[in-house]
Amino acid sequence: MNVKAVLNTLGKMTVAEAALLLLPLGVSLGYAEFHAASAFAVTVMLAAAIGGILICFTRRHSNVIFARDGFMIVAWVWILISLIGALPFRISGAIPSYVDAFFETVSGFTTTGASILSDIESMPKGMLFWRSFTHFIGGMGFLVFVMAIIPNITDRSIHILKAEVPGPVVGKLVPRIKDTAKILYLIYIAITLLEIVMLICGGMPVFDSVVHSFGSAGTGGFSSKNTSIAGYSPYCQWVIGVFMLLFGVNFNIYYLLFIKKFKDALKSTELWCYISIMLAGTAVITYNNIAVFGGFSESLRHSFFQASSIMTTTGYSTANFDTWAGLSKSILFILMFIGACAGSTGGGLKVSRVIILFKTVSREIRRLLNPRSVKVVHFEGKKADESTVSGVSQYFAIYIICFVTAFLLISFEPFGLESNISATAACYNNIGPGFGAVGPAMNYAGYTAFSKIVLAFSMLLGRLEIFPIIIAFSPSLIKNK
Amino acid sequence: MNVKAVLNTLGKMTVAEAALLLLPLGVSLGYAEFHAASAFAVTVMLAAAIGGILICFTRRHSNVIFARDGFMIVAWVWILISLIGALPFRISGAIPSYVDAFFETVSGFTTTGASILSDIESMPKGMLFWRSFTHFIGGMGFLVFVMAIIPNITDRSIHILKAEVPGPVVGKLVPRIKDTAKILYLIYIAITLLEIVMLICGGMPVFDSVVHSFGSAGTGGFSSKNTSIAGYSPYCQWVIGVFMLLFGVNFNIYYLLFIKKFKDALKSTELWCYISIMLAGTAVITYNNIAVFGGFSESLRHSFFQASSIMTTTGYSTANFDTWAGLSKSILFILMFIGACAGSTGGGLKVSRVIILFKTVSREIRRLLNPRSVKVVHFEGKKADESTVSGVSQYFAIYIICFVTAFLLISFEPFGLESNISATAACYNNIGPGFGAVGPAMNYAGYTAFSKIVLAFSMLLGRLEIFPIIIAFSPSLIKNK
Repeated sequence: MNVKAVLNTLGKMTVAEAALLLLPLGVSLGYAEFHAASAFAVTVMLAAAIGGILICFTRRHSNVIFARDGFMIVAWVWILISLIGALPFRISGAIPSYVDAFFETVSGFTTTGASILSDIESMPKGMLFWRSFTHFIGGMGFLVFVMAIIPNITDRSIHILKAEVPGPVVGKLVPRIKDTAKILYLIYIAITLLEIVMLICGGMPVFDSVVHSFGSAGTGGFSSKNTSIAGYSPYCQWVIGVFMLLFGVNFNIYYLLFIKKFKDALKSTELWCYISIMLAGTAVITYNNIAVFGGFSESLRHSFFQASSIMTTTGYSTANFDTWAGLSKSILFILMFIGACAGSTGGGLKVSRVIILFKTVSREIRRLLNPRSVKVVHFEGKKADESTVSGVSQYFAIYIICFVTAFLLISFEPFGLESNISATAACYNNIGPGFGAVGPAMNYAGYTAFSKIVLAFSMLLGRLEIFPIIIAFSPSLIKNK
Repeated sequence: MNVKAVLNTLGKMTVAEAALLLLPLGVSLGYAEFHAASAFAVTVMLAAAIGGILICFTRRHSNVIFARDGFMIVAWVWILISLIGALPFRISGAIPSYVDAFFETVSGFTTTGASILSDIESMPKGMLFWRSFTHFIGGMGFLVFVMAIIPNITDRSIHILKAEVPGPVVGKLVPRIKDTAKILYLIYIAITLLEIVMLICGGMPVFDSVVHSFGSAGTGGFSSKNTSIAGYSPYCQWVIGVFMLLFGVNFNIYYLLFIKKFKDALKSTELWCYISIMLAGTAVITYNNIAVFGGFSESLRHSFFQASSIMTTTGYSTANFDTWAGLSKSILFILMFIGACAGSTGGGLKVSRVIILFKTVSREIRRLLNPRSVKVVHFEGKKADESTVSGVSQYFAIYIICFVTAFLLISFEPFGLESNISATAACYNNIGPGFGAVGPAMNYAGYTAFSKIVLAFSMLLGRLEIFPIIIAFSPSLIKNK
């Protein structure tokens, strides 16, 4: 392992986080919250110091990094920025326990949106801003963001991009990795700005518009209100519902639209499957809910919003879906696992993996019937690489194994199977609220510190797609080369 | 497809079932239950007639059968014998609804043990005997049984053996397929007889001993008592607990012991993993339950019994485990999916598949770190065939897909996530009781006819390891050769 290069990158990222923390510091000062501002100031200095030391001691390092270094960097950067990002909450006393603050920050960066706060509205504005800003940073990827702006990025950094951007196949949009990162971020910022403007036009206060746009952009789900999106106008609910859907789309599609390759963009199998699943889910839930909401259009709005929110793994709510009928809850539960498109800010298994899984399974059945037939799996109009195809089945296996392990570890909690299994699913797939004790009207405060740490690591496993975290904690894998 | 050969085998199997039905007919007469006896007599005649007609019209058929014919035969035989096996319940009025009777019979043959009966003890003895006898027949496989006794079995029939005996790899114990079937059945009958004798020695009535030995031999779980095994002495509970464990072992091991290859038998990785998982589960549940049972030895007995019962997918109970602590329930829930050893009478994923999954995943991680390393998965001391390895990942994918589909289909039921998900898991993995509305103190009577049919097919999917049932209902797969 190239230890110096890993530590050097860690240092750079810590300095970058210090710079980003200046933004909530400014917001706190703007709202005259000097207590919160001082907490941010202390954290900025601390982060800058840690980063500076790390960079100083690793100035001379080889630029050559391999796949394993990429995984190491991504895992430890995410853990470190979460540890540091939690400090303002703890220092200001806004969240008295450091474990809780860490849980909240990991939940932010991983765009989960699971909260331990029972009264969000009593928090200082600066803290709420930082909480939602972590969604925005984590959505497209912290390292991708930094790669887009700092110099000296070699094309070796594809390993970092691969490890941080979700999905089975990661392509460079353009030959230079740095330009890819820039393009991704420009699209991301543009759509977010559009959402902010549209929410402000709908009468939502500016601060709330920014917070909720960050939350939908990163498919995170932190709100500035205790009732999430329930208190806003139907217009605002529709806007957020549609934008969540948009942020669940593979960003390559937007790039193709941007360079006017409309045909290529609309040929995407994943896009159409994603939309079809969302619409089918919405249709059944709408029908199932008509009696609850006393009419079709009301039911459609809440059902679409919730299907979009859960499938994109955002986690906003306009209604307490924990009280809905069993069928609706089951559909939401399954959408939690399918997740959004690869290369989007959403979590879960990803639609493309689900498609490849189905195709692999169908090939396996044909092979059983005609053992001599050798068939290739096609995806997105091309022959899928055999290692991608088997990689998806194996990812699915490890995905379920990690899920079961996390579920078992939090089973000490007295909340019952439904709460615990949905809490694990909601954290692991980066959604936020689940059912029962962690339903949309509840929060994670009741869980023990041990379970909170387990759930925080589940979020990291989900967001970074498992391998970086496992590799980061398996020194034996590194040693034998 | 070789339609004539398929129909001919269906005919033979129906006649075989008619012959087997003479046994409960005799039991009914012995207990002077003439109403039940007449129901059996009518069914015997009907089955013999259907079988006779099928055989007559397909007398001249080619003996050549392919993999697809094997799957077709197995699927349709299981469906047909369940449809016929349900008749005595319906005709005698012991179960007034035919769907309920079908559910109960499928549950019997697939060795699930899920019941719709709320008062088992009011049933005629002959019916109870037939109900448990279906476990015994279904455990080792109906076709395997018939193959062991009827003449004219070609070695092509390996396709049938492969489709009916659970597990990722099926080997012939001896060169001739018929001898393999015979050896399997002899071992099976010998251990069952041993259990009957040991239970009778413990003071259990003869009828109950036979019923419960059938139930544990097939890892089924139907009891002749409303309280399952709770009312019997600790000695009987220990005996049944241990025998359930024994029937969850790969029968190849017993064959190796029988031919005195002790070293080979004890080298089995699957065996040791199976025992280790069972012991680990027992240990945690025992500790978790000490307060409930007021002492270590009581807790150990109930915990071991339940771990053994659930992991072997039998489903007997000595206590209402639905009221146990969350951790114990979670462990039982996970044991439901792991299941017993391949080549045993138990259901679930099978321990060997779980081992191969873990090994595949670990190889995938190593491959990510060193893309050029090509490693082979070893299992049971040998290099595992690459198609077996990828087959296991793909089986796992289709296993979860079918599970999720069945769960979604029964989500119309008003029983909540915990009940519905555990009902699906308990039927799909051929266990029987789940949690909540389908807990050990409850039954499946509350589910709608639609859900009962879905659950019955889940049992068949689980018992026949998915592919036969899917292929049987996919004529399109057959048509394009």
